Amino acid sequence: MKNRIFECCVNELSRLPGIGKKTAARLALHILKTDIEQVRALSASLIELKEKTVFCKICGNMSETEVCHICTDDYRNRTQLCVVEEAKDIFVLEATGFYRGLYHVLGGRISPLDGIGPDDLSIDKLIQRATSDEVAEVIIATNPDIEGETTAIYLSKLLHKLNLNVTKIASGVPIGSNLEYTDELTLLKAMEQRKDF
Amino acid sequence: MKNRIFECCVNELSRLPGIGKKTAARLALHILKTDIEQVRALSASLIELKEKTVFCKICGNMSETEVCHICTDDYRNRTQLCVVEEAKDIFVLEATGFYRGLYHVLGGRISPLDGIGPDDLSIDKLIQRATSDEVAEVIIATNPDIEGETTAIYLSKLLHKLNLNVTKIASGVPIGSNLEYTDELTLLKAMEQRKDF
Repeated sequence: MKNRIFECCVNELSRLPGIGKKTAARLALHILKTDIEQVRALSASLIELKEKTVFCKICGNMSETEVCHICTDDYRNRTQLCVVEEAKDIFVLEATGFYRGLYHVLGGRISPLDGIGPDDLSIDKLIQRATSDEVAEVIIATNPDIEGETTAIYLSKLLHKLNLNVTKIASGVPIGSNLEYTDELTLLKAMEQRKDF
Repeated sequence: MKNRIFECCVNELSRLPGIGKKTAARLALHILKTDIEQVRALSASLIELKEKTVFCKICGNMSETEVCHICTDDYRNRTQLCVVEEAKDIFVLEATGFYRGLYHVLGGRISPLDGIGPDDLSIDKLIQRATSDEVAEVIIATNPDIEGETTAIYLSKLLHKLNLNVTKIASGVPIGSNLEYTDELTLLKAMEQRKDF
C-alpha cells in the first residue's frame, strides 16, 4: 500500500496556482514536521477566509462586511475613483500607501478570445458611481497588457462622453530595473510619456 | 476595519517554506475564487496528513502504518539498503522507479555548525540493519554538499570496518544541462568519475 494520505495532500496542494507536484510535496513534508496546532490554524484560516469573505456591494473589493473598509472609511478621498480589473489589484495598490481615494472592481477585462465582453464587467455600476456629484477623477489602473489596454481605451471613451476627468496610471521603466534589459514596448511607452524634469 | 481574516490567512500561508507574503496573498485570493468544497478538501487533507502519518519504525520513511509500504513489500530487494538524509529523499528516489531495494533514513546529516553529530542520527540502527545476513550492499545517497559528503565519508569508514559492500550515488553533469554553465566542482567530479564508454 502506497502512502495514500500523502499523495492526496500533494494533489490538493498542487491545485493551487503556481504550485506544481514538487513544490506540493515539499509543502506536505513541511506540514509533517510542523506542530499540529499550526497546521490546524492554517487549515481553519483557509475555511474562514472562504466562508466569511464577501465582495463589497459598492466597489467589489473583498470584505468581511457587506460594504468594505475602504468604502466606509470617512477619511478616504471620495472625489477619486480608481478602476481595477480584480479585487487583488486593490491589495497591491493599497500596499503602496499613496492612493487615498475609492476603488471600483470591474471583475475582469474585455477579452474577446475568452468570450468576455463589456457586458460581463461591472461597467454600468462604474458609470453610475462615476457620474455621481462627488467624483472628480476616474483613474484607470487596468493591467498594461493587450486586454487591459483594450479595456482602458473602451472605458476612457465611455467616460469622456460623460464629460468625466479620466486619467491612467503611467507605464514606463520599472524602478530599480536596467534600460538594457527592458523590453522595447516598455521603453517606447517610457519615451512617449516622458516628463519635464 | 481592515480585512483581518484575509491578513490572518496570508500570515498562515506565508509560514510555509518558499511562500512569501506576495505568493501567500495570491494563494489566498485563489482560495476566495475556489469552491468551498475544494477548500474543505485541501484543509482536511492537511490535518489528515499531520494526524495520520507516522514514521516507519524500521526505516524512518513516512507511513500510514507502523511499518511503511516499502519495508513490508515482499517484492523489494532486501539485499540492498539505500541510506538517505530525510524521508523526503525516498520520495524523489522512488519517483525514478529504478531502485527496488530498501531504505534507511538518517534523520539529518553530520553538521558541527548546527550542533548535529553522528549520535544525533539513526546510525546505530543502520549498522544493526546493515550487518544482518540479508544485506549485501549499502548505497549512500546523502546530498552532494559539504555536510552530506562528510556524512557519507563517516558512514563509509564505519561500514567498511564491518566488511560491508558500500557504494555511493554518482556525482556529475546533470542530464539536459550544458557544460558551459556547470560549476567547476561538478565538472571536476564528472571528470574524476568518468566511465568507459
